[in-house]
Amino acid sequence: MFYLVIDILGTVAFAISGVLVAMEKKLDVFGVFIIAFVTAVGGGTLRDLLIGNTPVGWMKAPIYIFTILITVIVAILFVHQLKHFRKSLFLFDTIGIGLYTMIGIEKGLLAELTPIICIALGTMTASFGGVIRDILCNEIPVIFRKEIYATVCILGGIIYFVLIQFPIDGTIAYIAGILSIIAMRLLAVKFKISLPNIYRS
Amino acid sequence: MFYLVIDILGTVAFAISGVLVAMEKKLDVFGVFIIAFVTAVGGGTLRDLLIGNTPVGWMKAPIYIFTILITVIVAILFVHQLKHFRKSLFLFDTIGIGLYTMIGIEKGLLAELTPIICIALGTMTASFGGVIRDILCNEIPVIFRKEIYATVCILGGIIYFVLIQFPIDGTIAYIAGILSIIAMRLLAVKFKISLPNIYRS
Amino acid sequence: MFYLVIDILGTVAFAISGVLVAMEKKLDVFGVFIIAFVTAVGGGTLRDLLIGNTPVGWMKAPIYIFTILITVIVAILFVHQLKHFRKSLFLFDTIGIGLYTMIGIEKGLLAELTPIICIALGTMTASFGGVIRDILCNEIPVIFRKEIYATVCILGGIIYFVLIQFPIDGTIAYIAGILSIIAMRLLAVKFKISLPNIYRS
Repeated sequence: MFYLVIDILGTVAFAISGVLVAMEKKLDVFGVFIIAFVTAVGGGTLRDLLIGNTPVGWMKAPIYIFTILITVIVAILFVHQLKHFRKSLFLFDTIGIGLYTMIGIEKGLLAELTPIICIALGTMTASFGGVIRDILCNEIPVIFRKEIYATVCILGGIIYFVLIQFPIDGTIAYIAGILSIIAMRLLAVKFKISLPNIYRS
Repeated sequence: MFYLVIDILGTVAFAISGVLVAMEKKLDVFGVFIIAFVTAVGGGTLRDLLIGNTPVGWMKAPIYIFTILITVIVAILFVHQLKHFRKSLFLFDTIGIGLYTMIGIEKGLLAELTPIICIALGTMTASFGGVIRDILCNEIPVIFRKEIYATVCILGGIIYFVLIQFPIDGTIAYIAGILSIIAMRLLAVKFKISLPNIYRS
Repeated sequence: MFYLVIDILGTVAFAISGVLVAMEKKLDVFGVFIIAFVTAVGGGTLRDLLIGNTPVGWMKAPIYIFTILITVIVAILFVHQLKHFRKSLFLFDTIGIGLYTMIGIEKGLLAELTPIICIALGTMTASFGGVIRDILCNEIPVIFRKEIYATVCILGGIIYFVLIQFPIDGTIAYIAGILSIIAMRLLAVKFKISLPNIYRS
C-alpha cells in the first residue's frame, strides 16, 4: 500500500514532466497525453520487453492509464500554476526514481539475471521514460547531456547489492537502496555535482 | 478474404505515405523501403511486442513484405503521378485505419485485456506506424501535432465496446466499429474539425 | 572460440563508432556509454525482441556489457589517437557486419522463419544498432541516406540461401556468407559504389 502511494506519486511527477516538455513543443491534446504516458511508463515498458514480461506492466494494471489521464487533464488546466509546485514535483520525481530503480532491480532478480544487468534494468526503469519522451519530441535525451540522474540510480543499485552480501533483512536493503538514491540526487542537485567533463581539450 | 483485400489496400496506402515522407527527406532506396515498411507494419509490430505475440505478425506472413516491396518500387517510379491518386490513397488510408483499429482491439480481447487497453492497442495499430516513420525521419510525429487521426480510432473503439453490450452479432459490431471510424475521419477532414486548442493564453 | 573473437572485435568497432558520434554531439560520459552500447547491441536486441527470444542476448552474456564499458573508457581517453586506427576499425566493423548478418540469419532459421525474413533479421542485426544510435543522437540514420551497408548484408544473405540449396557443408556456406559480405563491402567502399539515385528530376 505504501509502495503503491509512492508509485502513483512518481507516476504523477513523471507524467507532469512529460506534459511540460510536450506543451513546450506545442503538441495537441493527444500528443501531450502520449508524451506524458511514455514518460511515466516507458522505462518500465522497455524493461518488461527486454526481460520478456508480456503483456507489459501497464496493460495489466489500468490504474496507471487513469492516473496519467487525470494528471494530464489537471496539468493542462492548471499549467500556469504548476510552477508553484515545482519543489513538490521535484521531490515526487526523486522519490519515484528511487522506487523505480529498486522495482527494476527486483524484476531482474526475479528473472534470475546477474547484478550488473539488474542494475541496468533498474536504471532503465527510472530513466528511459524520459529518453523516449525526448526522442518523441525530437530532442537529444537530456539525461545523455547533463542531468546526473542515471548515475545516481546506478550507485543506488550498487549500494543495494553490496548490502545484501551482509546478513541483513532484504526489505531493509531495499529501502536503503531507495533512500540512498533519494539522498544522492538531492545532494547532487543542491551542490550542482555533475559528471566529469570529457571535453577538456 | 474481404478483410485481406482491405488489409492489403491499407498496407499499400500506409507504405505510400512512408515513401512520400522518405523521399521528401531525400533518403536512398534502402531508406525509402525501410520507412515505407515501418509505416505500414510498425503499429501492429509495437502492439504484438507489448502483448507478447512473437514472432510478430509480418514475420509469419511474408505477403506484407512483398506487398510493400512492390508498392515502393511502383511508388518511386511513378512518384510524379501519385498526386492524381491522392483521393484514392486517402480513402484506402481511411479504410485501413478503420480495419487496423478493430484488428488491434481484437488482439487485445484475445489476450484478455480490459476494454481501455484494447482501445489503446487498436489506436496504436492504426497510428503508430506513422509515429515511427516520423521519428526515423527526424520529425515530431504529425499525429501529436495536428491530425485528428488517433482520436477517431479511440471513438470508434468506444462505439464498438458500447455496441457489444447489446445483444447484437459480434461481426456487426466489428463492422460498425470500422464504418464509424471511416465516417468520423471523412467528416473530420471535410469539416476541418480539430482537437480543442490548449494554448489559448 | 574463433567466432567469439570476431564477435568481440565487431562489438569494439561498433561501440567506438557510437563513442565518436556521441562525442561529436558533446554528450556526457553516461550518454556516450549508452550510445556505444546501443550501437553495439541494438540490432541484435531488436531482432531478439521481434522473434521473442527474451531475455535478449546481452542480458544473458555480461561479457558484452564489460567489453563495451572498457572500450568506452579507452576510446574516451585516447580519442585523439583513434584516427590512427581508422583502418583497423573499419576492418573490424566490416568483419563484424559479416558475422552479425549470419548470426541474425541463423536465429531466424532456428525460429523456423522463411528465408526473406531471415535475411531481414540478419540485416537488422548488422545495421540497426547504427539506426538506434543515430535516432538517439537526433540524426536521420546514415544508412538510410548514403552508406551502402545494409544492401551488402542483404546480398550476402541471398548468397547464403543460394549456397545451401547445393549439397555443400552448412559451415562452408556460413563462412562464404560472411566472406562475401566482407568482400562486397570492401569493394563498395573502394570503388565508391552507391545505390542508384532516385532523385533524377
